[in-house]
Amino acid sequence: MAKILVVHGPNLNLLGSREPETYGRETLEEINARLQALAAAEGVALEAFQSNHEGELIDRIHAARGEADFIVINPGGYTHVSVALRDALSAVAIPVIEVHLSNIHAREEFRSTSLVAPVAVGQIVGFGPLSYELAVRAALSRMASDGGSA
Amino acid sequence: MAKILVVHGPNLNLLGSREPETYGRETLEEINARLQALAAAEGVALEAFQSNHEGELIDRIHAARGEADFIVINPGGYTHVSVALRDALSAVAIPVIEVHLSNIHAREEFRSTSLVAPVAVGQIVGFGPLSYELAVRAALSRMASDGGSA
Amino acid sequence: MAKILVVHGPNLNLLGSREPETYGRETLEEINARLQALAAAEGVALEAFQSNHEGELIDRIHAARGEADFIVINPGGYTHVSVALRDALSAVAIPVIEVHLSNIHAREEFRSTSLVAPVAVGQIVGFGPLSYELAVRAALSRMASDGGSA
Amino acid sequence: MAKILVVHGPNLNLLGSREPETYGRETLEEINARLQALAAAEGVALEAFQSNHEGELIDRIHAARGEADFIVINPGGYTHVSVALRDALSAVAIPVIEVHLSNIHAREEFRSTSLVAPVAVGQIVGFGPLSYELAVRAALSRMASDGGSA
Amino acid sequence: MAKILVVHGPNLNLLGSREPETYGRETLEEINARLQALAAAEGVALEAFQSNHEGELIDRIHAARGEADFIVINPGGYTHVSVALRDALSAVAIPVIEVHLSNIHAREEFRSTSLVAPVAVGQIVGFGPLSYELAVRAALSRMASDGGSA
Amino acid sequence: MAKILVVHGPNLNLLGSREPETYGRETLEEINARLQALAAAEGVALEAFQSNHEGELIDRIHAARGEADFIVINPGGYTHVSVALRDALSAVAIPVIEVHLSNIHAREEFRSTSLVAPVAVGQIVGFGPLSYELAVRAALSRMASDGGSA
Amino acid sequence: MAKILVVHGPNLNLLGSREPETYGRETLEEINARLQALAAAEGVALEAFQSNHEGELIDRIHAARGEADFIVINPGGYTHVSVALRDALSAVAIPVIEVHLSNIHAREEFRSTSLVAPVAVGQIVGFGPLSYELAVRAALSRMASDGGSA
Amino acid sequence: MAKILVVHGPNLNLLGSREPETYGRETLEEINARLQALAAAEGVALEAFQSNHEGELIDRIHAARGEADFIVINPGGYTHVSVALRDALSAVAIPVIEVHLSNIHAREEFRSTSLVAPVAVGQIVGFGPLSYELAVRAALSRMASDGGSA
Amino acid sequence: MAKILVVHGPNLNLLGSREPETYGRETLEEINARLQALAAAEGVALEAFQSNHEGELIDRIHAARGEADFIVINPGGYTHVSVALRDALSAVAIPVIEVHLSNIHAREEFRSTSLVAPVAVGQIVGFGPLSYELAVRAALSRMASDGGSA
Amino acid sequence: MAKILVVHGPNLNLLGSREPETYGRETLEEINARLQALAAAEGVALEAFQSNHEGELIDRIHAARGEADFIVINPGGYTHVSVALRDALSAVAIPVIEVHLSNIHAREEFRSTSLVAPVAVGQIVGFGPLSYELAVRAALSRMASDGGSA
Amino acid sequence: MAKILVVHGPNLNLLGSREPETYGRETLEEINARLQALAAAEGVALEAFQSNHEGELIDRIHAARGEADFIVINPGGYTHVSVALRDALSAVAIPVIEVHLSNIHAREEFRSTSLVAPVAVGQIVGFGPLSYELAVRAALSRMASDGGSA
Amino acid sequence: MAKILVVHGPNLNLLGSREPETYGRETLEEINARLQALAAAEGVALEAFQSNHEGELIDRIHAARGEADFIVINPGGYTHVSVALRDALSAVAIPVIEVHLSNIHAREEFRSTSLVAPVAVGQIVGFGPLSYELAVRAALSRMASDGGSA
Repeated sequence: MAKILVVHGPNLNLLGSREPETYGRETLEEINARLQALAAAEGVALEAFQSNHEGELIDRIHAARGEADFIVINPGGYTHVSVALRDALSAVAIPVIEVHLSNIHAREEFRSTSLVAPVAVGQIVGFGPLSYELAVRAALSRMASDGGSA
Repeated sequence: MAKILVVHGPNLNLLGSREPETYGRETLEEINARLQALAAAEGVALEAFQSNHEGELIDRIHAARGEADFIVINPGGYTHVSVALRDALSAVAIPVIEVHLSNIHAREEFRSTSLVAPVAVGQIVGFGPLSYELAVRAALSRMASDGGSA
Repeated sequence: MAKILVVHGPNLNLLGSREPETYGRETLEEINARLQALAAAEGVALEAFQSNHEGELIDRIHAARGEADFIVINPGGYTHVSVALRDALSAVAIPVIEVHLSNIHAREEFRSTSLVAPVAVGQIVGFGPLSYELAVRAALSRMASDGGSA
Repeated sequence: MAKILVVHGPNLNLLGSREPETYGRETLEEINARLQALAAAEGVALEAFQSNHEGELIDRIHAARGEADFIVINPGGYTHVSVALRDALSAVAIPVIEVHLSNIHAREEFRSTSLVAPVAVGQIVGFGPLSYELAVRAALSRMASDGGSA
Repeated sequence: MAKILVVHGPNLNLLGSREPETYGRETLEEINARLQALAAAEGVALEAFQSNHEGELIDRIHAARGEADFIVINPGGYTHVSVALRDALSAVAIPVIEVHLSNIHAREEFRSTSLVAPVAVGQIVGFGPLSYELAVRAALSRMASDGGSA
Repeated sequence: MAKILVVHGPNLNLLGSREPETYGRETLEEINARLQALAAAEGVALEAFQSNHEGELIDRIHAARGEADFIVINPGGYTHVSVALRDALSAVAIPVIEVHLSNIHAREEFRSTSLVAPVAVGQIVGFGPLSYELAVRAALSRMASDGGSA
Repeated sequence: MAKILVVHGPNLNLLGSREPETYGRETLEEINARLQALAAAEGVALEAFQSNHEGELIDRIHAARGEADFIVINPGGYTHVSVALRDALSAVAIPVIEVHLSNIHAREEFRSTSLVAPVAVGQIVGFGPLSYELAVRAALSRMASDGGSA
Repeated sequence: MAKILVVHGPNLNLLGSREPETYGRETLEEINARLQALAAAEGVALEAFQSNHEGELIDRIHAARGEADFIVINPGGYTHVSVALRDALSAVAIPVIEVHLSNIHAREEFRSTSLVAPVAVGQIVGFGPLSYELAVRAALSRMASDGGSA
Repeated sequence: MAKILVVHGPNLNLLGSREPETYGRETLEEINARLQALAAAEGVALEAFQSNHEGELIDRIHAARGEADFIVINPGGYTHVSVALRDALSAVAIPVIEVHLSNIHAREEFRSTSLVAPVAVGQIVGFGPLSYELAVRAALSRMASDGGSA
Repeated sequence: MAKILVVHGPNLNLLGSREPETYGRETLEEINARLQALAAAEGVALEAFQSNHEGELIDRIHAARGEADFIVINPGGYTHVSVALRDALSAVAIPVIEVHLSNIHAREEFRSTSLVAPVAVGQIVGFGPLSYELAVRAALSRMASDGGSA
Repeated sequence: MAKILVVHGPNLNLLGSREPETYGRETLEEINARLQALAAAEGVALEAFQSNHEGELIDRIHAARGEADFIVINPGGYTHVSVALRDALSAVAIPVIEVHLSNIHAREEFRSTSLVAPVAVGQIVGFGPLSYELAVRAALSRMASDGGSA
Repeated sequence: MAKILVVHGPNLNLLGSREPETYGRETLEEINARLQALAAAEGVALEAFQSNHEGELIDRIHAARGEADFIVINPGGYTHVSVALRDALSAVAIPVIEVHLSNIHAREEFRSTSLVAPVAVGQIVGFGPLSYELAVRAALSRMASDGGSA
């Protein structure tokens, strides 16, 4: 059974309780549940992982080798500075979609540069929790056209 | 009836015949047809417009005032340099989603900066024709949650 | 009879209906009429031209050779990027005054650089429609001191 | 009775005797007299002040609180480097118009950046002594539309 | 009872034994004890936390929600590069004071930029362990004037 | 019969009448005639096109697919800013030679960067109308060595 | 008797009356009085000096040689541009603490660089009038540990 | 007995299985074994440590105080951004040699800057696993000439 | 008899044997012979000189005073860094054409800047050995129109 | 009788007492006396002026019109930031020599740029008080060759 | 018999006599002798060449074609500016190792960029004469694994 | 007998014949003769050397060790790019004065940076041949005060 790994970076555990007027009242658990339903409808497994630790994120990505067919990642604050995370994604050679809740190209200048983007298939930013859903749809679509078995 | 305007910028008229191994064999007409079907299924009209002329793109965006509820735009080469296009999008005050076929953050450095992104809701890049589809889905989702009448 | 050409760049056709609290409720037609009256009072003809097309702006400037004695131009979004427009203004060798409704030096950084300014007599920014009026007054004053016949 | 304060920065005391072929033969006193006449015709007082001392310019601006309704300032060489002058203008909260005799956007690169411009209503550059006259006209116009009592 | 959380970033566990001629012979425990006494004298609790792990610092800051009224943080080497830490501090919406033992503005250029400072109330640098004491005093003062209950 | 398309960008329609002491007294028509004679002598057709409109230049380049074997282009002011023009030249996959009348590397700094050059075979600048002639000779030489049928 | 010199730079004379909601209602005289009481309690004299003139600030600092044991300075707008002030502080070889009312690292970019900081012991920013108080406390603490006679 | 600590940063645990055509088929364990043999032949102990966690790397370096005589470190992706790691290496005051498998000066621009290099004895890059061997040889040589007891 | 000096900079002695698939199989001698024939047909002498030594290139250029009427130079790697070579060309006041085999504007960024170009008549790049031929033709054309005696 | 004006900028009044091991034990008065003797020997008057006030320096330079034949100036800290001082020197149109005691090109980067240098005849830096003497000699030499009457 | 060419750039002839406390007392001859012994032990010839002339270094590298199997080069001051040297190394297509005595990444900023490094196998810096030895070892190791015959 | 070495860099051999209206009609030989007379009057030998070859300049500087007490150098075009020349001057540890005929701080931007200046005692620019004379006077003065034997 094909599998998508959804990786949530630092501070995303606060979703729902943090600035709800901006980020919405949906919690990370609720988002993950919705994404799992979306994938399940296509016969694809979906596992979500969150950590505030750069090292744990890297460890989890390494573990995805031979396990996941697609990675959807919101690298949060590590987006702009973590060469190590980028290298981990390159190393495992699993296709990656980068996701952001907010439109990082419309905020502070340092947020507009992503070290992950050049090693990703694509980037989806600015749609809140819907960004994740679009990314999972994109992954499902790619997996369907690449293999068919998904 | 709610309406989405899809705007294709310069060189996109060549889709299907230009470097098909990179951009796919689907023509712009085929993409537009698929997007219209997607919108129609939600009871939303969708009109597509393509031009290689910056001025025509601006004229078309102006004409969308009071006509369209969402704009999905692939500004092509004007993305990185057209202040006039950005100002047109700001002026009409219709929500905008920016789309690119290729992952502009993984190409020449000058392509990674978008003048449109800061005035858009969000940006979707790197998924080929699927980028448009994801954008239309995002627009439909936003229109549904904003109004319900769509 | 001496003549002033007033050139309005992209998006200025929206004046009056676009963000009236910022740009005022006066339309471009009303502004042009007021400017014509101002010039007529000094025995000077004044013609106004607006286009969202860079190429049409250039064509109009070319046509001004041997016809206009002064150009007042608000290049809008082309201010910061159009080398072609700058070259057109240089080529026709008619004195130019650059005008902006808003104070471009108090907005996004990319707006503070003008490619037109170095080939213009001067620049007037920040006074809304009054910017045009000041520019026409300046042109009239210069034409009077240069020739007297104006 | 409403009042405009005209502030002339460093080296402007030399006007008329310094490079007359460039800056004209009109002295600062003559310019001030002409500006006063212009304001008087609208029932507005106008006082002019010149100093080569940054501190004196700041002191004078401070003293304008509760005294002047508009400041027209040519900050001369302090334009590009004086944060203190900018802060003084911000602090007194009187609307400001920045003026330059020459077109600072067509000279050495360091002259094209103004620290004053972002806290000013607008900027008028390149018209010689006429720059001041246009600025006073703009101030009078603004005062008339804001209050009517001017 | 009001509470201050003092967060020490990477390498600060070495205080006292590392380059004592520069950083003094006081250990982190001794500094913490002194700060606790200072706060206790004002009837305020103070807890200190140190970690070399960016993720643990973020976890600890998250846990401070609803628990601490002020955060005093020396982000050490994470000051200049950790967007994730900055976002964590923004997210919990507790007022923050940034502290550094050395004068970061008098060292290598890369140390003079702080990603934390823009989301902090203020910054105190250069006074060795006294920097912490001044920060706690500032926090106590702010808490006293804000609430009085501290 | 092989064919060369010569594309003249903005303001080049003024050749002959604009600053003749700099650009020479030869008009664009005269230059085109000379280039046609040069090509005809080698049995190659040559068509020239001029426009001040970026969009028309792109349209014309698109139309050259399957029609022209070489493009000689003087992109004028679009050289330095038009990503759309560059993309059009890349998309049609016809070999390109970039030409400039003046030595763009000896003028304002912004003129020394060409967005077209990286997708061109080569660049010839500084020889006035002779630049075109050298470019056509180069195209003819390449066409001769590539095919021989030219 | 040991002595602290407190130097207030440009525009600080307006404290209390300028934007009181931001800078508080306390006047400079009131702040100075509070600082003097603070120092007196430790048996240390404290003199305050304010000027909007860069030259007067330099003169005053020169005069402090052999007179003051510590300088607390808020260089205001001179912070970012005055090499002369920095050199004066270096030349007199009296330890210096730099103070700012607002958090200069959270404002316009040009405010985040201080020419004074590299020659100061430390910098305290963002606490309003409390910034001065913390600086005087730091000076007193340093004087006590250096000499004991203070 | 003298001791060398070899520290492997993020993603190096994948050696041997990750892109073997580029990085070789040798695993980290095999490399470590070879390095240990090399050191043992000179009567020097060698311990290797790998972690993807920046904090664990810092903790391990701290623990090396009084234990190791030389550190050989491949900081991986932390090379270019980790001020904390640099500070840890400076703090423990053990001589350091920086190592990279690939030639970081021939890759993406952001890889050519190392925050570790300025606090290291030297840097060896580009030789694959041989880079480590050369570094251990250099450490052994230095230890021999410094002490002789190694 | 008029004369053209062709100067070949460093590494051009390897032409023909170095990367023939890129630079062609023609040797420098063969190119020179062809250029001489081309010039001779117009009654112009042509001498070629190659050196890898910056000093020898300068010496040769000095010697051309009163001897050569035009210089065609491929400065090779000295193009981007040799101020001395540029000064030599300026000093002898002989018109210069800069030539490059490859399209330097399509390679590493440091190759796109030429110190020679601003003191040259023009620049021809990207046509392999044909670049030289075009340059000699341009020189012959200029010499013919300047003097006629060539 | 010809006259040289020597202008000493901020902090130079401290010469002799400030860091004598670096700047020497000679006071400004002693230096001035020596320079006067040097000029007197050539029949030239020499007057020296020192101020820490930018405005006073400008006033003094203005007063030199019609009075002095050469200005030797050490602008001290105003060298790098004072556009007003530069403009004053340009405006009076008296030849200027810039002098510095220390080698400003071997200190902090911000000291290596002089706003005065581009409007000066030349610059002499690094020789301590001897810098002034060399400058006066240069001025005397120029005055002798220009007029002979000096 | 395989052969290594060791190339020493400018100023390296002074080794041993120049700043011996920094660079050691070993002369270049002694270093070369040691390197030759090292290579001879592996049955490989080693020749050393030193010159202060960029052109001679290039000539020597050219001559190595068909003669040497590896080049070890310390380009000295040419490292950071010589495109010609880089091109020579690329042209001869012999594998290169770049060596520096000092740690160029810990010195002036301009020394941290090497034009040679991107065309080299690797770079070894900071170990004094040992840098050469490590490089020769690396070359021998590579030659052994590539051919075995070395 | 003490000795000064005067080193003239590239293109200075042309003095007198090159642009005499700018650089004067004095030849290098005449300048050298004048400098020798100046030194001889103080009992100091002076030798001059000119070369267009960077390597020869370095060789000559090396040879000055133990021979010359001061070096006066005009590095010409090597000033701005030759790290090797700078290193040679540092290595021989003879005090250096840098000289330029023209005011390099008033020309193209790339000329205002000198790699030699940071390792020189001082810099004298802008006085034509008089620059050399002032430098020799400075050297004589320094030699007199250092030793007295000169």
